[in-house]
Amino acid sequence: MAAEPDPGLDIAGYLARSKEAVDRMLDRLLPAETEEPATIHRAMRYSVFAGGKRVRPILILAAGESVGGARETLLHLGSAVEMIHTYSLIHDDLPALDDDDLRRGVPTCHKVFGEAMAILAGDALLTRCYQVLGDLPSLPGGDATRLALIREIARATGTVEGMIGGQVVDLESEGKPIGAAALEYIHRSKTGALLAACTRCGGLASGASAEQLSALTEYGRAVGLMFQIVDDILDVTASSATLGKTAGKDQKVKKATYPALYGVEASRQKARALNNAAVEALAPLGERGVTLRNLAQFVYTRTS
Amino acid sequence: MAAEPDPGLDIAGYLARSKEAVDRMLDRLLPAETEEPATIHRAMRYSVFAGGKRVRPILILAAGESVGGARETLLHLGSAVEMIHTYSLIHDDLPALDDDDLRRGVPTCHKVFGEAMAILAGDALLTRCYQVLGDLPSLPGGDATRLALIREIARATGTVEGMIGGQVVDLESEGKPIGAAALEYIHRSKTGALLAACTRCGGLASGASAEQLSALTEYGRAVGLMFQIVDDILDVTASSATLGKTAGKDQKVKKATYPALYGVEASRQKARALNNAAVEALAPLGERGVTLRNLAQFVYTRTS
Repeated sequence: MAAEPDPGLDIAGYLARSKEAVDRMLDRLLPAETEEPATIHRAMRYSVFAGGKRVRPILILAAGESVGGARETLLHLGSAVEMIHTYSLIHDDLPALDDDDLRRGVPTCHKVFGEAMAILAGDALLTRCYQVLGDLPSLPGGDATRLALIREIARATGTVEGMIGGQVVDLESEGKPIGAAALEYIHRSKTGALLAACTRCGGLASGASAEQLSALTEYGRAVGLMFQIVDDILDVTASSATLGKTAGKDQKVKKATYPALYGVEASRQKARALNNAAVEALAPLGERGVTLRNLAQFVYTRTS
Repeated sequence: MAAEPDPGLDIAGYLARSKEAVDRMLDRLLPAETEEPATIHRAMRYSVFAGGKRVRPILILAAGESVGGARETLLHLGSAVEMIHTYSLIHDDLPALDDDDLRRGVPTCHKVFGEAMAILAGDALLTRCYQVLGDLPSLPGGDATRLALIREIARATGTVEGMIGGQVVDLESEGKPIGAAALEYIHRSKTGALLAACTRCGGLASGASAEQLSALTEYGRAVGLMFQIVDDILDVTASSATLGKTAGKDQKVKKATYPALYGVEASRQKARALNNAAVEALAPLGERGVTLRNLAQFVYTRTS
């Protein structure tokens, strides 16, 4: 594996190369399909390799490399986080939750393996994440850093201002009028917290200074919220074919979204402001922040 | 908290005092019911405090104290493991899995909070466990030990010879003829692996020597398997009222059990042999192994 950081000037190329590297690492870190009990390993791999963009691992990689981190370690860390992300998608798609048949253009885990196996595959990916984090290869700060990463990720995906908390409030808000405070809580917690944790963890795993870590934290918060707002806008304006999932679904079930509360135009303005804030936060990183800057721009302008 | 190890000569008293201490610690380590989002915290606490015997934390406590461990740290560790155990019960009880309405004599989580919240409450307890493990108070070996515990618990509850793997094979075996090898895999993985990890983790968190750790490992494996065999026997011979769950359920859904494969009498003999093996394994611990010896006897003779 090359020790040279990928400059990421050609963002499409950077994304493609990074996704490939993440996928190779995920393949290494997940039990083989032939390993018994095979069904659960097939279900885990089915969902992990069902076409994700690897946004979280790539954020970790770009954040870590912007402060001189080691690619191999960052790929391990990114793969662990992608396992948590995939578990959350599998459980969110279940009939008792969002009841989605399609995800990333292919049938969801429970449609292929049944509900019982989908629940267990989610549990297994969540468990595997911590196993991988516990075994993270050499990194600055050693075991203390490994534990800091575990704490950071557990907090970002937990119930108090974390992913599960956001999902709970989102579920409880369906079909009800929602205020600005609740909407912000949902977005900040459900997706924002883990996205922000990605840039922080990338920094932590790379021996970032306090100033660098604070820049990465601010950047991560802005990009995390922007990501969700753009997602909401796309649900209103894009087609199912472009999205690879059922478009207009949020509106149909009266999900709490930015466009629903503020309209599409104001939501676009908010996304633009967050993109600017993300780029400004990168100032302390100097020239090495270029990949993160391009990533923010990519998230801002994405169409699927 | 008293620094004196509890001698556990009166096993009923020891179990009652330990359960109380574990419950107090769980209350400290779980988010309050009033903390937002309140529903998920109510669901987590509902299932955690629905009357469990705290077998796993008590095994951790007794194993750790048998080699001079600190009670406070062992209670933290035990509470984290009880969160994982409770998550597994909540998910196992779901309609898509065992479809159980009663657990420990009270309605299951999804009967009270609905399926969506039960799935999320399980996920949240699993996540919280690793947050608590990451924050474990002072212990011999510091961060290296914290990570060893995380790895041990993640492995014991994962898909390869761990809890989820056992559950998968158990589900896939329902209603089919089952061989001795598959039955052993299910028991060793589904409940045995975590029970054995409890005694190992109790030792690891207490600075056990290699000889002590190996004694605790052997003891834990024997008690873990015995626990499951006694459970199977009770499902055949006890009433629902005594068990606090639906008796005869295993037979009804043709679950793989020891009595189904070997008959009740041979299963009792196997349990007796495991009790003897557990007690023999304790020899290197000398007089300090008395609580573990009494615990094994208790598991062997329990009626509910």
